[in-house]
Amino acid sequence: MSHVFINGQWYRPEEAVISVFDRGFLFADGVYEVVPFYAGHALLFNDHLDRLDRSLGEVGISNPYPRDQWLSICQTLAESLTDANAVVYIQVTRGAEFPRQHLPSTEIEPTVMATASHWAPPTATSEPVRVELMEDIRWLRCDIKSVSLLGNIMLKREADKLGAFEPILHRAGRITEGASCNYFIVKNNVLYTPPADQLILAGITRDWILTLAEEAAIEVQEDAFSIQELMDADECFLSSSTREIQPVGFIGDQPINNGKTGPITQQLAELFRSNRPHVTHQIVKEHR
Amino acid sequence: MSHVFINGQWYRPEEAVISVFDRGFLFADGVYEVVPFYAGHALLFNDHLDRLDRSLGEVGISNPYPRDQWLSICQTLAESLTDANAVVYIQVTRGAEFPRQHLPSTEIEPTVMATASHWAPPTATSEPVRVELMEDIRWLRCDIKSVSLLGNIMLKREADKLGAFEPILHRAGRITEGASCNYFIVKNNVLYTPPADQLILAGITRDWILTLAEEAAIEVQEDAFSIQELMDADECFLSSSTREIQPVGFIGDQPINNGKTGPITQQLAELFRSNRPHVTHQIVKEHR
Repeated sequence: MSHVFINGQWYRPEEAVISVFDRGFLFADGVYEVVPFYAGHALLFNDHLDRLDRSLGEVGISNPYPRDQWLSICQTLAESLTDANAVVYIQVTRGAEFPRQHLPSTEIEPTVMATASHWAPPTATSEPVRVELMEDIRWLRCDIKSVSLLGNIMLKREADKLGAFEPILHRAGRITEGASCNYFIVKNNVLYTPPADQLILAGITRDWILTLAEEAAIEVQEDAFSIQELMDADECFLSSSTREIQPVGFIGDQPINNGKTGPITQQLAELFRSNRPHVTHQIVKEHR
Repeated sequence: MSHVFINGQWYRPEEAVISVFDRGFLFADGVYEVVPFYAGHALLFNDHLDRLDRSLGEVGISNPYPRDQWLSICQTLAESLTDANAVVYIQVTRGAEFPRQHLPSTEIEPTVMATASHWAPPTATSEPVRVELMEDIRWLRCDIKSVSLLGNIMLKREADKLGAFEPILHRAGRITEGASCNYFIVKNNVLYTPPADQLILAGITRDWILTLAEEAAIEVQEDAFSIQELMDADECFLSSSTREIQPVGFIGDQPINNGKTGPITQQLAELFRSNRPHVTHQIVKEHR
């Protein structure tokens, strides 16, 4: 049975409710994290919780729990699932108050919700997917991992209607990211990804891929690239906590590397999988 | 006692809950309307419900109720309050499903929530307020009245910290709107307001003010204006369903019309109040 944690209590999913006056529901006034667990061990747990702290700080919500309590909640959720392979979701909103008003009162208490769903961690590199180029209509603070995600959902639905795995977004011709992933290209053996400014979310997976690439002596450039540079790339892949490294074979109808997984993409995906036990054990030990 | 309507049932506010898996809570995947009632009569009800239909259409959620049912729900809510002076809030989200996934399933049923809070309709023109100029960080589909409002909340909190009534937002130097209102300026007896494109929400109050101005032979221009044109304006006011016409006396430290309510602002505010009974009775009669 799955569990849902709400403000210190545990519920079954069908019993897990919050007030309709929660500002998460009325104003998308909250932030979240998604932490992958591999056989009970969180990958890069501290990085995810550091980012939660940063998101909360940017929107002015205080973090209600110390880190060891967060780890305990997340571990409990992960261990409730088969093999403890879990995608743990945590959300913190500014809290509930009645009547609805844009400006929150200062005494409001944050709402915490956490839950987990089962997943199968990748054991091999997935087949390349097709993505669709679209205009990035989202806000200018995509560096905050907020639940204010309607733009992402609209773009994701539009990509899905076109039979694509994900959108690949651009703002005035400059590539930003996907609806729920970061993008990388390879050109002349150099790995490029957009810089971690306010137009993208600096993915934990993205950052770790950059570290792995540097350790493997692959040249890395955190530089904006254009639609034309994307189309001319030797390789392309996307990254996220649950998809790790996902090769991209087509941008719309345009094949990249003849629609096949490129060699540097393959090398990084293998490095990712072989290094997973290192960064999971390391993080969990630190907290226990 | 106030009421909350959720999916066909009535609750007290403290009992009014939704699933934590509602996509309104997880993804801000929903839209809303705010309808002012004056002594039990909705102002411009059809305009609000037309806009709800449009917002729902843009995000791909079907409207679960016919209009007479919406009117009945809203009337019941308004009549539960003293003098039936009510701000009725309605929200429709894509619905709840477990586990969380960006792409919604096709069978999901929308969630409807509606509630009301008491208000005192303006009986005179309010004193001028000070607003603060800020960069518009929101998404590029502000024409959809969505609950994806974290940007608005951040800007509203920032304005409040500066002691201002509202932010006045600009995108690359062009004025757009506030966190929850539209803006107008008067220059040489011409009334200007930004055009109803995808960067602003076309307020029901905004549209009616344009009609009232035209009927009063005031020249109207729906044209973008710059920060400099704002600072050089003869008059400035903001509009919303609950504030009607609110004079603006200062943009930061810059006085407008010496910090006083301008003559055209005063004329329009009086026209608004004197015409309210006309558009309320008209609308209610049409539906009963």
